[in-house]
Amino acid sequence: MKYQKVLIAGKWREVKNPAGHFNAVNPASKQALPENYPVCGEEDILEAIQAGKKAAVELRRVPRERLARFLELFAEKIEVHADELVKIAHIETALPKEPRLKNVELPRTTGQLREAARAARGRSWCRATIDSAVNIRSMMGPLDGPVSIFGPNNFPFAFNSVSGGDFAAAVAAGNPVIAKANTGHPGTTRILAELAFEAVRETELPLGTVQMIYRTLPELGLKMVSHPDIGASAFTGTKSAGLKLKEAADMAGKPVYLEMSSVNPVFILPGAVEERSSDIARELFGSCAMGAGQFCTNPGLIIVQKGEASEQFIRTLSEMFSSTPPGTLLSLNGADDIVDAVKILISAGAQLLAGGNKVESESCMAENTLLRVDGKTFISHPHELQTEAFGTASLIVVANDIREMKDIASVMEGNLTGTIYSHLQGSDDEDYYIIEPELRPRVGRLLNDKTPTGVAVVSAMNHGGPYPATGHPGFTAVGLPGSMLRFAALYCYDNVRPHRLPAELQDKNPTGDMWRMIDGEWTRKDI
Amino acid sequence: MKYQKVLIAGKWREVKNPAGHFNAVNPASKQALPENYPVCGEEDILEAIQAGKKAAVELRRVPRERLARFLELFAEKIEVHADELVKIAHIETALPKEPRLKNVELPRTTGQLREAARAARGRSWCRATIDSAVNIRSMMGPLDGPVSIFGPNNFPFAFNSVSGGDFAAAVAAGNPVIAKANTGHPGTTRILAELAFEAVRETELPLGTVQMIYRTLPELGLKMVSHPDIGASAFTGTKSAGLKLKEAADMAGKPVYLEMSSVNPVFILPGAVEERSSDIARELFGSCAMGAGQFCTNPGLIIVQKGEASEQFIRTLSEMFSSTPPGTLLSLNGADDIVDAVKILISAGAQLLAGGNKVESESCMAENTLLRVDGKTFISHPHELQTEAFGTASLIVVANDIREMKDIASVMEGNLTGTIYSHLQGSDDEDYYIIEPELRPRVGRLLNDKTPTGVAVVSAMNHGGPYPATGHPGFTAVGLPGSMLRFAALYCYDNVRPHRLPAELQDKNPTGDMWRMIDGEWTRKDI
Repeated sequence: MKYQKVLIAGKWREVKNPAGHFNAVNPASKQALPENYPVCGEEDILEAIQAGKKAAVELRRVPRERLARFLELFAEKIEVHADELVKIAHIETALPKEPRLKNVELPRTTGQLREAARAARGRSWCRATIDSAVNIRSMMGPLDGPVSIFGPNNFPFAFNSVSGGDFAAAVAAGNPVIAKANTGHPGTTRILAELAFEAVRETELPLGTVQMIYRTLPELGLKMVSHPDIGASAFTGTKSAGLKLKEAADMAGKPVYLEMSSVNPVFILPGAVEERSSDIARELFGSCAMGAGQFCTNPGLIIVQKGEASEQFIRTLSEMFSSTPPGTLLSLNGADDIVDAVKILISAGAQLLAGGNKVESESCMAENTLLRVDGKTFISHPHELQTEAFGTASLIVVANDIREMKDIASVMEGNLTGTIYSHLQGSDDEDYYIIEPELRPRVGRLLNDKTPTGVAVVSAMNHGGPYPATGHPGFTAVGLPGSMLRFAALYCYDNVRPHRLPAELQDKNPTGDMWRMIDGEWTRKDI
Repeated sequence: MKYQKVLIAGKWREVKNPAGHFNAVNPASKQALPENYPVCGEEDILEAIQAGKKAAVELRRVPRERLARFLELFAEKIEVHADELVKIAHIETALPKEPRLKNVELPRTTGQLREAARAARGRSWCRATIDSAVNIRSMMGPLDGPVSIFGPNNFPFAFNSVSGGDFAAAVAAGNPVIAKANTGHPGTTRILAELAFEAVRETELPLGTVQMIYRTLPELGLKMVSHPDIGASAFTGTKSAGLKLKEAADMAGKPVYLEMSSVNPVFILPGAVEERSSDIARELFGSCAMGAGQFCTNPGLIIVQKGEASEQFIRTLSEMFSSTPPGTLLSLNGADDIVDAVKILISAGAQLLAGGNKVESESCMAENTLLRVDGKTFISHPHELQTEAFGTASLIVVANDIREMKDIASVMEGNLTGTIYSHLQGSDDEDYYIIEPELRPRVGRLLNDKTPTGVAVVSAMNHGGPYPATGHPGFTAVGLPGSMLRFAALYCYDNVRPHRLPAELQDKNPTGDMWRMIDGEWTRKDI
């Protein structure tokens, strides 16, 4: 059988001893696509790690300008091949070509790469700190090995392991990448890796800077994230897979950054329901149904207080869930996973208001699903009732009063986002200050009066949050330059002779406008 | 039997069901001290965690000025009680009263507390980041629970779990602390905890802000660091204990910061040996013997190139090790631990040049110990030959040539520090650039021409490094405000109404001179 080639150690080549193979599936037709992709065995993995380690050493000597040019050139190449990329990503994911893939996700991807280039060139990201009186200087710098990246299925470009946010951040911080293609879109990933590798060659980066494999045996994935020559790993996907990688990496003392699961609670305070119930319902449904509900920040939990206005809100929302045709899911098992999650919710006491089943169709689909449960039940089964159903499936919790709403907030697990809708003229302000202190420390991003989907790529973004939303509450996966800090180590220079210091720590500002903390002051000046 | 009281939930009280007891020992006389200290059982631990969680919630509403005043008042109280503290610390650790305890460590401790107060008051540490166009704002803020701190035996004040660097950083970042006293100096820790608690009451902080226990069962230590209501943990001590805590915390998704072991390699290039052999020997011996060698940054590994000048250097150093009386160790098992480590080094191929044995004395002592091994042997047993002997015990590695020196650097495990001595007029510069790229990513702090002991408390300090020196290469345990970032989470506010934002993120600069990153520029201005 003929397999697609992998990119290892600067070569597109056959895998050495394939441990199996797979085909991608078009979720719109449930038909397997013709290309055969190999599952890598141990020899390939070890060779990739070795080549990545070598590239990590070489990359430290490469001028940051070349790193920046690589990222920009890669972005340009993605734009040149936009039609081809959109076409194959659409076939592999069933995500709409327009506006989603072509007009939203692809520009976001190239925008991220260019922003990463600016950060690499500008160097302020490394937080150079100089205490001149004692001549001690420090900065964040690249890790001592490649970053292995496991991308998710729901963003074939913007979170792709070879073009997405983790990739851009890892490379901009000066690290090589070993990308594991998501099994849902190997063809898209192959083209992106080809373009990235062209850009590697054209900017004369070490050839091992970008490597790409499709799939490997689970035990080899664990071996990779815990290998002594790996710098760090990044994973976006299911909690069960993420926790296994985390355990292996932790035991070896290797940093691993995970984005695993989130139900993104939305608290709607009584004044807001009275004031603008149908507006909020419309907005929320849009957020719930966006991308067939397969967004990390999808609002999976909606908390209201009991009363006639809330019942009307629930009826409106339920009608929207029932009457809107479901979207196509990303994968063959997507509908089963949703049905399984719904079963857990129901067995913990939730009632179905809409949907709950797979759709018999030639496409991968599940019904839009809405459930409800009372606050007391939620509080007594908080873990089960925070089960994530990855699709257009949300659970409404009806609390007795604001105290119970508070208790619900207090049993929230770590989430990426938490939202509070409140009366625009302030009638909910007292209640806000009851909920907010409970919700705030349990979420990465706290929102007011807007839906959590749509993660802006800005420097103040936090696409992160407490465990189990991620593995560490101090880091963000989106937003530059913050996301680069995951792939960096703190390097201090004590009494090091001036000409031996990295440019970022020499007396003279290396760019003329890099921000540095000198003797307690942020400044762009020389010393 | 009457036990000393623990400080739990705002009360000095008896433990509920003591799981045992212990006495401190005066290392100068090997005599047990009279006070009986209890080993806490589960009930006490759970009550402390619960009280800490409550305090964490309450502390979020306390003005930062009060936190700062607490830290300053505590420093003042330590100064008032300096004589008493120095006296008991001397009895419990045998560290010299002067200059060490009174003139060095105590001022360092109060200096750290005051610097932490400045950071809490100034707020620049929280790295407020504002993107005004999209109204997304973020900052580092306190964790969702208390920080448990396990202090080491070698700094009864400056790294004490209830007064040291971790304590100051955790509190300044807004977290309550559960301090586990080191078993070596419980009496010192008790007095410090009393002073801290007085300061808590006088500044009207939540009473659970500072709690202190002496010892608990190992399984309860693991339970504490992995408890859902713990914010994070900090540990300084042996690798074996640290790794157990790390495993438990990791499995629960709780941050844990460890400082575990380091041999702090010192590379002496040939030109430096030719130029100033005896100066370097004198300086290095001082660093090796300081505090009876019981410093985390003690130079345990010295790498030279073969040749007559190096042999002379080794003879000089060996003579210093042999002729200088050994210092008193911190604990009864200190000498055995050194002898055990030396046995591992010898069985891996090292030869004794000086010492190697316990000293039969009324004090806890081991001979000053120097060993040597050739480069080839080191490279073939790199793990065993990096065994840390916590005392005045160092291993000299004699390399054949600069390539072998490079290979030695390339098998270094993660270390806190790495040092390169080179010719002052530059004759070693070529060799420097061969060693440095290997050493740099394997150490937290890289030094030129000075010894690694003496960790300045400045903002550019990195007292950290790659695993297994610590558990994460991106954080420092010493140096404010950097060390506070370990005890903080990233909190983002998206479209949150202006009056609901924390002061640090409102349009108006809350102090007038706090540094904030606004639209890509570090500034002290309002928006």
